[in-house]
Amino acid sequence: MAQIKPRTLSGFMELLPARQVQFDRMVDILRSSYSLYGFTPLDTPAIEASEVLLAKGGGETEKQIYRFTKGDTDLSLRFDLTVPLAKYVALHQNELTFPFRRFQIAKVYRGERAQKGRYREFYQADIDVIGDGSLDITNEAEIPSIIYKTFTALGLKRFKIRVNNRKVLNGLFALLGLEEQAGDVMRTIDKLEKIGPEKVKAILVDDFAVPADTADTLLSLLAAEDPMAALEPLRGKNELFDLGVEELTTVVKYMAAYGVPQDHFMVDLTIARGLDYYTGTVYETVMLDHPEVGSICSGGRYDNLAEYYTDKQLPGVGISIGLTRLFSVLEAQGYLNDALITAPADVLVLPMTEDLAPAIAFATTLREAGIRTQLHCEKKKFKQKLSYADKLGIPYAAFLGEDEIQQGKVTVKDLTSGEQQTVTADEAVALVRSGLAARAGGAPIREPQN
Amino acid sequence: MAQIKPRTLSGFMELLPARQVQFDRMVDILRSSYSLYGFTPLDTPAIEASEVLLAKGGGETEKQIYRFTKGDTDLSLRFDLTVPLAKYVALHQNELTFPFRRFQIAKVYRGERAQKGRYREFYQADIDVIGDGSLDITNEAEIPSIIYKTFTALGLKRFKIRVNNRKVLNGLFALLGLEEQAGDVMRTIDKLEKIGPEKVKAILVDDFAVPADTADTLLSLLAAEDPMAALEPLRGKNELFDLGVEELTTVVKYMAAYGVPQDHFMVDLTIARGLDYYTGTVYETVMLDHPEVGSICSGGRYDNLAEYYTDKQLPGVGISIGLTRLFSVLEAQGYLNDALITAPADVLVLPMTEDLAPAIAFATTLREAGIRTQLHCEKKKFKQKLSYADKLGIPYAAFLGEDEIQQGKVTVKDLTSGEQQTVTADEAVALVRSGLAARAGGAPIREPQN
Repeated sequence: MAQIKPRTLSGFMELLPARQVQFDRMVDILRSSYSLYGFTPLDTPAIEASEVLLAKGGGETEKQIYRFTKGDTDLSLRFDLTVPLAKYVALHQNELTFPFRRFQIAKVYRGERAQKGRYREFYQADIDVIGDGSLDITNEAEIPSIIYKTFTALGLKRFKIRVNNRKVLNGLFALLGLEEQAGDVMRTIDKLEKIGPEKVKAILVDDFAVPADTADTLLSLLAAEDPMAALEPLRGKNELFDLGVEELTTVVKYMAAYGVPQDHFMVDLTIARGLDYYTGTVYETVMLDHPEVGSICSGGRYDNLAEYYTDKQLPGVGISIGLTRLFSVLEAQGYLNDALITAPADVLVLPMTEDLAPAIAFATTLREAGIRTQLHCEKKKFKQKLSYADKLGIPYAAFLGEDEIQQGKVTVKDLTSGEQQTVTADEAVALVRSGLAARAGGAPIREPQN
Repeated sequence: MAQIKPRTLSGFMELLPARQVQFDRMVDILRSSYSLYGFTPLDTPAIEASEVLLAKGGGETEKQIYRFTKGDTDLSLRFDLTVPLAKYVALHQNELTFPFRRFQIAKVYRGERAQKGRYREFYQADIDVIGDGSLDITNEAEIPSIIYKTFTALGLKRFKIRVNNRKVLNGLFALLGLEEQAGDVMRTIDKLEKIGPEKVKAILVDDFAVPADTADTLLSLLAAEDPMAALEPLRGKNELFDLGVEELTTVVKYMAAYGVPQDHFMVDLTIARGLDYYTGTVYETVMLDHPEVGSICSGGRYDNLAEYYTDKQLPGVGISIGLTRLFSVLEAQGYLNDALITAPADVLVLPMTEDLAPAIAFATTLREAGIRTQLHCEKKKFKQKLSYADKLGIPYAAFLGEDEIQQGKVTVKDLTSGEQQTVTADEAVALVRSGLAARAGGAPIREPQN
């Protein structure tokens, strides 16, 4: 038969079974963490009508979109989860209850040039709170606590959430007479971490006609040890700025009540998150030991989710985790906790008699007790069957020979310690359960000891 | 701003939040049911190279495929989960341990003509066991128990698993001298339930030159009350037939040990499941009260999963649930258990003071106790906030006014009974927990009382 060489497209993550279990465990934790904060799960189509998906149009994103026709219909694969959310909320606005809190963990598609760490199909894990006309600042204050609890539940410890407010930035530019160059200034200060304050100043002054002393004022503000204190003297001169400082103050104020430790949170006036979309609090999250990775969870407050679809004013706040990329970073850095069980089963049952009924009945008992069980009835040597369990990391094997069957018992072997005992089915359930409980409890991420 | 009318493509399921929760609950049950049987989760790309996905080529499916180019690459969206599995196993054969047991619950795409009950994007929930060169018959015997346990866990009671064996059918055709017309005969007897035995006989005799007495023999066999007994006298004349009867006998024999009640299982010699793919046991599952829906879970044994990609012989057995269609049937028939909580949260916390810190701290306590909690801090009237909880079906509201805060307490209101009590945070946790436990425990499917 003519054969085709099997391959998986580059830029598409396809994991081996043990890694997949680790990935899924992270997804489970995200789901339960988001659920704890009262977000409802949503699932929207991966394909949308192009005119709907590209209503906003233009930009870099459009070139990356997987777009095609089927019959007469111009279709596109979603490139993020925000545009489908906007469509969903605009379409179903009369059936939804606001504030509408949803999470979605799903694949999105971007046909980027393939390169290391870039995926063409990748999971995003998003939450958004959408208000009907208005949305209280407390929603913005809650987001860092969700980020903190989520990454903590995943097992990450050394990370920091950075927060800023776009009203503060825009107000500041107005105060400094930089309104016209606001976009350019924002893009330039975004490079601060990369190129340092001297070069930023040079660009501001030389390329964007910012007066040297204004650039100094701006840069010293952005570099302030205590940003909230540094902003204080500027209050009372610009309404937008004052509102921004007030919002930022509220966000900071409630961090303790939300259970976010001080060392996991900071105000960083250099964070902007793009030019047009965000209008209030913005968020970034960095791994302290891997700043080169960039932000692993970002988002912010916006004023108009669905202006391309509806006149209804839908302000919101949301964050997104690029899960596929995060997972590949964690894997590359040795952050995945390989001590957790990734085997497809907890017990491998090995029948040793012609009649399989007793072994099958025992497997049925284990499953009814919630223990993940495989029966191995292939015509293989005993040693090969144990090697199968070993390769998969299955923690227990159970043998049922003539002796065991006559006694109404089963021999259970702990494949880690090598210990084995012949017990009743009920005792076997208890034994396996307590053994599994002792192994469980770890988080999917384990940071290397420093 | 120029606006685009938001819409979701026809043939694409998009659920409102409460329904989505019900759908997700079913997915969760499928995941844990499949896991109990030792299947490992897999996730493969939704997009594959067309030459890989269409290696088998031809047929009805190819017309339905979403196929397009990006750059120079000819791409297709997967139309099932079996071909991607074949690719995966062929590609990673040296890194996998056999028998390889995997489940995958994911969306597939078929650009069919849109009609009621047909979806262009739909979830399939598949399990497969793949052997390396050989695969024992016990794997085929295990499948009905997985089907039984899975649907029982979902809450479905009135269903029956029908089993046949392709070797029996093919052997039977050989015995009856119908080898040449085997395909036509199989397609015709597949219509038995629809058009009845007289018309089937007429077609067999008139269109496919089956002798009348042979047609009678065949039809009486297929209609036998006890199919296994009816097959018995034919043994010893055809090797394939004998092997098939032996396999079918093994499958039937172990049903009790696997915990499948007799009334949920039957041998049905009319089941064929297509012409070329399956080679051993085949399965269908029907809802007793809705036979018109057809099979809700089907599959079978095949000899060669990946012959288009590798010389390695990879026999397997698998089943698939068309989850999106099943869900729409359950919804239409009123089978979804609306008594289960579909709210995004268990408790809605309503701060009644300017300083939100005590309410936020209480919400944090609830979340740390695993209780799904929303804070409602919008500038709305108290009545509107309660109506929000009511619309979403949130079971509890918690108020923190000056009085409560001074006493270090909170007022918890059961929104179903209207009862309210002022208690400490710890007491509130216990109260909500026991209330939720009392409501929980139902399955997602609830059959109407007959």
